[in-house]
Amino acid sequence: MKPVDARTRIEVLDHATCMKLLAEDVVGRVAVIAGGSPMIFVVNYALDGSDVVFRSEAGTKVDIGVRAPACIEIDGLDREARTGWSVVLAGRLDEVTRYDNATWERVTQLPVDPWAAGDKPRWMRIVADTVTGRRVGPG
Amino acid sequence: MKPVDARTRIEVLDHATCMKLLAEDVVGRVAVIAGGSPMIFVVNYALDGSDVVFRSEAGTKVDIGVRAPACIEIDGLDREARTGWSVVLAGRLDEVTRYDNATWERVTQLPVDPWAAGDKPRWMRIVADTVTGRRVGPG
Repeated sequence: MKPVDARTRIEVLDHATCMKLLAEDVVGRVAVIAGGSPMIFVVNYALDGSDVVFRSEAGTKVDIGVRAPACIEIDGLDREARTGWSVVLAGRLDEVTRYDNATWERVTQLPVDPWAAGDKPRWMRIVADTVTGRRVGPG
Repeated sequence: MKPVDARTRIEVLDHATCMKLLAEDVVGRVAVIAGGSPMIFVVNYALDGSDVVFRSEAGTKVDIGVRAPACIEIDGLDREARTGWSVVLAGRLDEVTRYDNATWERVTQLPVDPWAAGDKPRWMRIVADTVTGRRVGPG
């Protein structure tokens, strides 16, 4: 029995469904706070257990700082059918460095393959606090 | 001549292209700050001139407050070709109310048609400060 809001017909996705959707996709939108404002950027990512890993050059994404709150959103939208789902994993930014050798060895083996060219030497992780998902529309 | 970063092959989209892409789509991802953390939610939207309008029930989106910083992101991603574009319009949240009659009359005529059912009586606007866009990958 799926929890569906009778008024809005919004279905709440359970945790396992959210994690499966996160595991199946490779690109999402990260939001961080920069200069007091929310900022969104697209990243290629992979799951590291229940956390999300992406790569970065030096720049805003990294300079936001370790332990800064962040989230990543993925979705599947069908504009013709007017349906869609979205999953948001929220937590804290963490930079994986060689100082944490075990984590570094594991994380840098992940298939995080940026579409943009150029060196992206820094490995960032969103350590998950919450994962939520919803689906809207028929079906 | 398009400005393309030689190292990353990221093409910067000009303002007209960004506005055209925003005009053509109907669904995007809004980011706001809630409780000190960035939060992303999917909305159906329409353009009101250079600003973005979406509808909301009472709840977090609205309760963030007027003049709170916000942005909306749209994108087109081709996972097989490993290419994509994204546009981010950033500015301040504004609730359109009947007290501003001219704006109310104009905005509530816009084709903002939420996929979710249920009453969404409140009309929110992101008054744009900046619009940026980029395209990644070949083509």
